[in-house]
Amino acid sequence: MRIAVLAGGIGGARFLLGVRAWAAAHDAEVTAIVNVGDDVTMHGLRICPDLDSIMYTLGGGNDTERGWGRAGESWRVKEELAAYGAGPDWFGLGDKDIATHLVRTRMLTAGVPLSAVTARLNERWQPGVTMLPATDQRVETHAICSGQAVHFQEWWIRHRAEIPTESFVFTGAAEARPAPGVLDALASADVILVAPSNPVVSIAPILAVPGIREALRGRRVVGISPIIGGSPVRGMADKCLAVLGVPVTAEAVGGLYADFLTAWLIDSGDTASIEGVKVVNAPLWMTDEAATVAMVEAAVRC
Amino acid sequence: MRIAVLAGGIGGARFLLGVRAWAAAHDAEVTAIVNVGDDVTMHGLRICPDLDSIMYTLGGGNDTERGWGRAGESWRVKEELAAYGAGPDWFGLGDKDIATHLVRTRMLTAGVPLSAVTARLNERWQPGVTMLPATDQRVETHAICSGQAVHFQEWWIRHRAEIPTESFVFTGAAEARPAPGVLDALASADVILVAPSNPVVSIAPILAVPGIREALRGRRVVGISPIIGGSPVRGMADKCLAVLGVPVTAEAVGGLYADFLTAWLIDSGDTASIEGVKVVNAPLWMTDEAATVAMVEAAVRC
Repeated sequence: MRIAVLAGGIGGARFLLGVRAWAAAHDAEVTAIVNVGDDVTMHGLRICPDLDSIMYTLGGGNDTERGWGRAGESWRVKEELAAYGAGPDWFGLGDKDIATHLVRTRMLTAGVPLSAVTARLNERWQPGVTMLPATDQRVETHAICSGQAVHFQEWWIRHRAEIPTESFVFTGAAEARPAPGVLDALASADVILVAPSNPVVSIAPILAVPGIREALRGRRVVGISPIIGGSPVRGMADKCLAVLGVPVTAEAVGGLYADFLTAWLIDSGDTASIEGVKVVNAPLWMTDEAATVAMVEAAVRC
Repeated sequence: MRIAVLAGGIGGARFLLGVRAWAAAHDAEVTAIVNVGDDVTMHGLRICPDLDSIMYTLGGGNDTERGWGRAGESWRVKEELAAYGAGPDWFGLGDKDIATHLVRTRMLTAGVPLSAVTARLNERWQPGVTMLPATDQRVETHAICSGQAVHFQEWWIRHRAEIPTESFVFTGAAEARPAPGVLDALASADVILVAPSNPVVSIAPILAVPGIREALRGRRVVGISPIIGGSPVRGMADKCLAVLGVPVTAEAVGGLYADFLTAWLIDSGDTASIEGVKVVNAPLWMTDEAATVAMVEAAVRC
């Protein structure tokens, strides 16, 4: 059995822990197609927060308390950059993390595509799933704020999503192509799962890569709601949805995927009605890996 | 009074501490013209060991026990790079040091010349002297070993200068120009000092930049011997001189500079005779700053 998962961010990483455990018990192969819209160049280093969150989490190297980055992280380089007055200073650039970015940046500069870089980094981390960036091209999410494009990382971390925002754009998406393996993984999957990641800035940038959304239509696609009882499971999806004028409900988020969803898994306490989509209830709080595995089981059985 | 100093490496840094102290007591301005032949790109980071050794030493941030790099250094990034199997692993790349390289690399990539980058980094370190790279172009020293070009850092650190070597070349020197300010500093100096740095791989790459050697001729130039009693003051100058077939003596090294030297300062116990050059004896061990200041005093009074 083959499972493909569209995922981004820390919610996606946590969900993939459950997918991996479910797959191990069912002899299934998992391919994660990961958002690159959060990617950013800082201090000359190419940083891929979603790929790294998933890689560190599945590789057992993540900081579970802080929720992002490496366990046992230190901040010497960041302190020194600050001593030089070399901004930006609002991005959490840890020493261990920097090694990942150095390896990646050097390879990208040498002309190696991001998908091959990701495979190389994962030789160390052995995540147990195939990790593919949605695209090898640069697709970066920007918030349009008073007519100015603000990189998503700056909008999210520096401004804490609290500046007036008209819309989001995925810069570079029009020229992007799915990374090698992405369309094959979608075409050969017995089920495609949409992780309970932020629909606006984690899943939408994946879908913005020409060819990916089309490849989902007519397939067996089960989405898992990132909204439970009117609030995001984690993060600031509510603030992102507000920009789009989309209600913070499981139904409204499912509606964003209506053109390709076979089924939409929502929390036991929620209700939704989406034309042409089977709606299924199950407990959606990823309190631990067992709960997440049960959620995956429910999704796969939809 | 204006003093220009040709310098490289840790010997050059130590010497400049004495020059700075002497200058402070005599209301003199110091410009250091620094070797870039050791510069290298590692893990995508542009590293300038001689500029950094001098900057950290004069800025009080150097590790005096280890002799190179930053005081209180840590090695997290290096350990992580090793965990990725991402070589080279023989270069001492400290966490604090990496911040310097990140600032430099980002600026160079943005098109800022090395001389301007050096000035920017020195805004933090306030070395008390004007530091200029010999050139803004890339001039990298390579050892020619069995017909293969080996970067000087690899030859020096990885191979510990212990592989058969035919010669040294300064790759890029032919196309280089003196950095802005270098020729002015030489033209306006009341005295030009040649630091007791390695003549083959610290001073020679400076002299290899077209226009610099010519600018020394006919000026008041005092060199300080890096050889005392047949041995280098520090480092492996003897191994470098052996490649050139030059004896490890104060006289022979002075002979390398004979075309532009006014005077050659050698240790009290040494003798030398170089046609057209005044040879002066003085204690040359830089045991502490006071000893170095006395040495500078002797050089300036030559």
